[in-house]
Amino acid sequence: MNTFRKELTFNTPTRRAYLNITPQVHQCVRESGIREGLVLVNAMHITASVFINDDEPGLHQDFEKWLETPAPEKPYSQYRHNGYEDNADAHLKRQVMGREVVVAITGGELDFGPWEQIFYGEFDGRRPKRVLVKIIGE
Amino acid sequence: MNTFRKELTFNTPTRRAYLNITPQVHQCVRESGIREGLVLVNAMHITASVFINDDEPGLHQDFEKWLETPAPEKPYSQYRHNGYEDNADAHLKRQVMGREVVVAITGGELDFGPWEQIFYGEFDGRRPKRVLVKIIGE
Amino acid sequence: MNTFRKELTFNTPTRRAYLNITPQVHQCVRESGIREGLVLVNAMHITASVFINDDEPGLHQDFEKWLETPAPEKPYSQYRHNGYEDNADAHLKRQVMGREVVVAITGGELDFGPWEQIFYGEFDGRRPKRVLVKIIGE
Repeated sequence: MNTFRKELTFNTPTRRAYLNITPQVHQCVRESGIREGLVLVNAMHITASVFINDDEPGLHQDFEKWLETPAPEKPYSQYRHNGYEDNADAHLKRQVMGREVVVAITGGELDFGPWEQIFYGEFDGRRPKRVLVKIIGE
Repeated sequence: MNTFRKELTFNTPTRRAYLNITPQVHQCVRESGIREGLVLVNAMHITASVFINDDEPGLHQDFEKWLETPAPEKPYSQYRHNGYEDNADAHLKRQVMGREVVVAITGGELDFGPWEQIFYGEFDGRRPKRVLVKIIGE
Repeated sequence: MNTFRKELTFNTPTRRAYLNITPQVHQCVRESGIREGLVLVNAMHITASVFINDDEPGLHQDFEKWLETPAPEKPYSQYRHNGYEDNADAHLKRQVMGREVVVAITGGELDFGPWEQIFYGEFDGRRPKRVLVKIIGE
């Protein structure tokens, strides 16, 4: 069994953003030399998400609006967590969108359906934050 | 380390449906011959879900009603994604329900609690769609 | 490839609770002797969750309030599932919070970002319930 580990770093200029990180994960699979196995891709921060969905800007605008309804950013005073911080909404949004994805590797490639793309979902950006890529297999 | 891969295909007659796919996943574990490891089961489409919950029809009716509140199917015009499609709600519902499950394999069996069952959640059906089963272990 | 399996049992005095189980999972990694691999931590019950977020009591109060809006516990009569039980809300809350986490193991340690902690989220407690820890690697 072989393993591979790499950190990706992102620093978004806006508080919230959706970045397609499929090329970087694909590159990790290539570098690993692993042809059959699993790749774990997870946000290392608890106000961000890694998820799989469509690379379509209209959908990302829908996410932005949709996540504000259950977990609005403001007023900050509505959250107990914000006695310490101003990002409680980001912790909640990340629960809806998920921390991680696990993707199969088959024949040295990400084993994807026709439209699957991996996204980094940032909910409290404007500073460097990391994503972990861990691969195990042979 | 051994690996196993199989695609399952579903074509639901309705736009939304919940199918118990535990028997098919169980069969994959048997076919793989793997006795200790992990099985990844994921929707290969971004408007569908694989999740674990109870096999109880009343609960599935609750899911149907519950998912319509944050992500109603209609009116289609409320979503930016629907400039291209009519299934933005399905992309959102799938985020709540999740893309994938990872289940332990112990002694050649799915290592489940008393009521755990694996479901395929379809949110934009009436066409053939696929689920990936990938197993690694020994 | 080596594997390790352990069940953790929790019996919370309240219907809902958030327990930091990172020390127990850390202990499992130590016991396994595995230095490179993946650990799966999942609720074995379908009215509970395992998730990663912040160990901050204000945030947990926010979770409590936040999950009641889409999935209120009462009135029980609002759910079809509750013809059989009184815990439909717990099945729904668990979908938002997730069943499982997969965490990388690197150099014999949980490969975490700065604030990541593993929680057991109980939504229908006051009885013994289990969490499965399964590790594969070398």
